[in-house]
Amino acid sequence: MEILQLLSERKFAALKPLVAAMNATDLAEIFEKIENEQDVPVLFRILPKDLAAETFVEMDGELKEQLIKALNDKELRAVMDELFLDDTVDLIEEMPAVVVKRVLAQSDKKTREYINLILQYPKDSAGSVMTIEFVSLRKDMTVEQAFERIRKTAIDKETIYTCYVTDQTKRLLGLVTAKDLLLAEKDALLGDIMNENVIYAHTSDDKEDVARKIADYGFLALPIVDKEMRLVGIVTVDDAMTVLEEENTEDFEKIAAVVPTDKPYLKTNAWRICVNRLPWLLILLVSATFSGLIISANEATLNMPIYGIVLTACMPMLMGTGGNAGSQASAMIIRGIALDEVRFSDFWRVVWKELRVSVLLGGILSVACFLKTLFLDGLYAVQNGALVALVISVSMFATVLFAKLIGAVLPLLAKKCKLDPAVVASPFITTLVDVLSLTIYCAFAVWFLGGI
Amino acid sequence: MEILQLLSERKFAALKPLVAAMNATDLAEIFEKIENEQDVPVLFRILPKDLAAETFVEMDGELKEQLIKALNDKELRAVMDELFLDDTVDLIEEMPAVVVKRVLAQSDKKTREYINLILQYPKDSAGSVMTIEFVSLRKDMTVEQAFERIRKTAIDKETIYTCYVTDQTKRLLGLVTAKDLLLAEKDALLGDIMNENVIYAHTSDDKEDVARKIADYGFLALPIVDKEMRLVGIVTVDDAMTVLEEENTEDFEKIAAVVPTDKPYLKTNAWRICVNRLPWLLILLVSATFSGLIISANEATLNMPIYGIVLTACMPMLMGTGGNAGSQASAMIIRGIALDEVRFSDFWRVVWKELRVSVLLGGILSVACFLKTLFLDGLYAVQNGALVALVISVSMFATVLFAKLIGAVLPLLAKKCKLDPAVVASPFITTLVDVLSLTIYCAFAVWFLGGI
Repeated sequence: MEILQLLSERKFAALKPLVAAMNATDLAEIFEKIENEQDVPVLFRILPKDLAAETFVEMDGELKEQLIKALNDKELRAVMDELFLDDTVDLIEEMPAVVVKRVLAQSDKKTREYINLILQYPKDSAGSVMTIEFVSLRKDMTVEQAFERIRKTAIDKETIYTCYVTDQTKRLLGLVTAKDLLLAEKDALLGDIMNENVIYAHTSDDKEDVARKIADYGFLALPIVDKEMRLVGIVTVDDAMTVLEEENTEDFEKIAAVVPTDKPYLKTNAWRICVNRLPWLLILLVSATFSGLIISANEATLNMPIYGIVLTACMPMLMGTGGNAGSQASAMIIRGIALDEVRFSDFWRVVWKELRVSVLLGGILSVACFLKTLFLDGLYAVQNGALVALVISVSMFATVLFAKLIGAVLPLLAKKCKLDPAVVASPFITTLVDVLSLTIYCAFAVWFLGGI
Repeated sequence: MEILQLLSERKFAALKPLVAAMNATDLAEIFEKIENEQDVPVLFRILPKDLAAETFVEMDGELKEQLIKALNDKELRAVMDELFLDDTVDLIEEMPAVVVKRVLAQSDKKTREYINLILQYPKDSAGSVMTIEFVSLRKDMTVEQAFERIRKTAIDKETIYTCYVTDQTKRLLGLVTAKDLLLAEKDALLGDIMNENVIYAHTSDDKEDVARKIADYGFLALPIVDKEMRLVGIVTVDDAMTVLEEENTEDFEKIAAVVPTDKPYLKTNAWRICVNRLPWLLILLVSATFSGLIISANEATLNMPIYGIVLTACMPMLMGTGGNAGSQASAMIIRGIALDEVRFSDFWRVVWKELRVSVLLGGILSVACFLKTLFLDGLYAVQNGALVALVISVSMFATVLFAKLIGAVLPLLAKKCKLDPAVVASPFITTLVDVLSLTIYCAFAVWFLGGI
């Protein structure tokens, strides 16, 4: 890397124009790659003030903390002054208490008040991700006056492309986009050109719902109002994308039975990863006791001189197929719920659909299974082999049926009970399906083969 | 629903202002709920022309097709005229040939040429999702002239908030945002205020990479250039969000071993769902043969009079824990690869991390497993019970170790081989881990208990 090279050679004159022309996101990545810790503040001090602040926002927590500790009060104050308020809030939430103290000491009074306000909103609410830096206009302004106002305040606003029209009590009346303003006559009144059918959200709404709304409507920002319908902030599309990506990662983690975390994989230490993964593995280990109990209880069947080992050998296939069939259904439903395509009111439609799917799939799979055990595994050569193959394939059918229904229904029920659909996914369902399929299997075995 | 009520009562005078004030996304949802097919074009004809086109874009494929068939040529032409070009392309790709023919017949020549151009780009490329409706400016224009140009053309452009400066040969020179323009002096030259460090992508780049770039940088649009660096289109943030959501859904489907599909769950018919899920279930059914073979081969061990059934009863626990441990690791790595946080160059870092994690986890789980089998399952009362519990818990340790390493390494190798990391996930890994854990288990059983 040219920049790292120049930095280590202390060629600041060559470095300065090079970094000044760069993008904050790319710069943050270069900062991550600096090997000598002392060089971090050195490079940071070369950056133009606004770019320095932007780059700071893009860094990861560790690097931010390192940098804050290395900067003196005046330098830190300069960075804090350039930050957007919502980035300051993110910083406060991320840093350890001692760092927070220093950051707050270098922020002005208004910023501190705002931070306190935002921190009062629940962790996953729209209020916690909104910014208060939006453009608000009055409905008796002309288009020209609106432009004047935007020009004066634009530099401190996170977006100027959607402007909000409010009354004296800050109640939201409508919105005008920069495009509307550009296309309107200069002396038109905002009250006449504004769109009054504003789609908004409340501070207490779930941030994921707000983000999804922005995605669905294709908005650049969504206004956030309080209980009295006063406009208190906006959520911008870039923050909405971040929220959606985080929620998607969380769903992945939950389906994989990992306790969700905010940190990227490579930045999380081994012990932390272990702690995140342990709880579910322990729960599942203990819940596997039930499968074990069923096998023990059917000792006589599984120890039958001729068929015992054949029946035992087919257990992994049955349990595996059941687990896979169940998680196919549950993953589809969980994703559907996340995208708001499937709701609890669709319960019976889902059940009816999965019933048809599982009869089709179960039918095909049990025929495949019958042929496989009979010919591939060689049961055709064994006395009553066809009967054993029949037991296995009928169990297969029942397993697929139950697995699909459980896999589809559990996430919906979880949603209804205000639990997280993703948490009840694969691992829980697998355990349940294991127990059911083994019970069915052993019951069929006794029923069909018991008398022989 | 008030609107559906008014529609069925044919109260058009009351209906008209009500729908005209609504948002296209919400309207599309109302259209989906219309029960009488004949009412769809009726309501559609009430909408103002531009809102009608916007609503059309938001409808799902089935409804679009229905509507196109119901509209006469003149009405269809009116809709086509209002559509953005990229939406027209989406329509063409979605509709059956006979509908496409009618749509193309009602589009003007320039649109048809453009559609042909876009359709030539590979399915997952940036070219296939870009729009050509952007604002391009010259560097010798003043800010005032730029505004003039934007005002004149804004109505036909998908975004006017990022404008691109090009030379006579359409080569990309720089960009100015509407905010830059608003903050600049009226007589400033674009060449002086434009940002020359433009981040762009090529038409042949993967659309997912382009979308992630937009998300990472927080852009409203990304310019797309051809091989000669000529600006041919842009990808806007709303399209980027759609691409990312689709890719996330696809990853979910692949991890759940379902063949990916574009259609929402409830809109896909049972047979189609069955076809999407069948291939993997069949593959996994056949691959379970290996686990069966291992069990059959160890018939003697598993039929040991005293310990046989205990060992068999613990198989689901071992295989289940192995499967879960493996999919925890694989899901983290797959997500890390998707977010570009983990790359193949991190291979040894990942291995080293998972090795430490699995030693920690395996250690804790095997102790838990030893105590569980000894006391909870009552092995303490059996002769040599502690030895059997030891076999089980040592196997548990080895299973967790292998499962974690396989789960982490396979997606990385897949990525390196240009395969899809998500496809090799859970099901494949589970099968592999099943086979390994059973082999280890039976080997330990023979080794420790064989001589008794």
